[in-house]
Amino acid sequence: MHEKIETRSVLFRGRYLLLERLNLSLDGRKAGIREIVRVPDAAAVLPLDRDKTVHLVRQFRPAVNRVLLEIPAGLISKGESAGETAARECEEETGVRPRRLRRLITYAHAEGYSTGFITLFLGTDLEYTGSVQLDASEHLYPVRLPFQELIHKVDSGEIVDSKTILSTLLTREITAD
Amino acid sequence: MHEKIETRSVLFRGRYLLLERLNLSLDGRKAGIREIVRVPDAAAVLPLDRDKTVHLVRQFRPAVNRVLLEIPAGLISKGESAGETAARECEEETGVRPRRLRRLITYAHAEGYSTGFITLFLGTDLEYTGSVQLDASEHLYPVRLPFQELIHKVDSGEIVDSKTILSTLLTREITAD
Repeated sequence: MHEKIETRSVLFRGRYLLLERLNLSLDGRKAGIREIVRVPDAAAVLPLDRDKTVHLVRQFRPAVNRVLLEIPAGLISKGESAGETAARECEEETGVRPRRLRRLITYAHAEGYSTGFITLFLGTDLEYTGSVQLDASEHLYPVRLPFQELIHKVDSGEIVDSKTILSTLLTREITAD
Repeated sequence: MHEKIETRSVLFRGRYLLLERLNLSLDGRKAGIREIVRVPDAAAVLPLDRDKTVHLVRQFRPAVNRVLLEIPAGLISKGESAGETAARECEEETGVRPRRLRRLITYAHAEGYSTGFITLFLGTDLEYTGSVQLDASEHLYPVRLPFQELIHKVDSGEIVDSKTILSTLLTREITAD
């Protein structure tokens, strides 16, 4: 027995973010409201090269007011699969395209107030297309480093985003064999 | 060289969520806007008992419209440390209070559009206080299960929130010795 969503209404529609109010019920009685953010799902990939280097991106993240080092990622476009998004974003942001994708995990990143799920992949068999394509609003810098160094950066706390932390831990498990 | 936040303004103030607009600049020139959600930071703990069982909570999460099985967690109150929040929430939600906390990691859960960071702990030396205290709006059900079963539930995809996935993987690493 748990609450159910009775009705949804738009609280605020920004240029990028959509805020909704959910009216909950329990056994047919009102059980409070919740405010949530409706966002598209996302996909990300850890591109691991044959020489055990990884292709990352460094970018300023206004929400946390910090420059972060992350795996390539992006929002899933309409009609796209998570794997297609991951491969496309990887190519656009780093200039390499994974020919093979292995799904690592799908998770909710902010289950308390957001609809968003993200799917992580390990990308291998990398093709160098060199076709970095960034939006005018994107200031991304490709960074290549040994996978071992990425592990150290996760352990030391330098890497702080959940997708890069999780994909690194899960890839370490896989490649430890 | 990267963008900087020039000004912030409140776009929408809900009962729980605060939406802000950030105006960015690059080299003194306008560099676009971002919409972000300002939320309090959070803390969570994986309470691991001497018999290798863990104390979790099952609850309906309206944002993802699913019942989730998670480690106890909550927002950090003013004047509280992350560890104090984690211990307090653990006691309120499961009835056991960890006497020892080991910090596992701190991460940004939605760096693209949220200010929120969360700190995870491994909690041990559990004290049974039995003082479960829930808000009227909280419908939480304590669930106790073997840590090994939690690992299986992470591997099978039944556990979908980042804090429970990450704390489980990191605790497995620690306790594998």
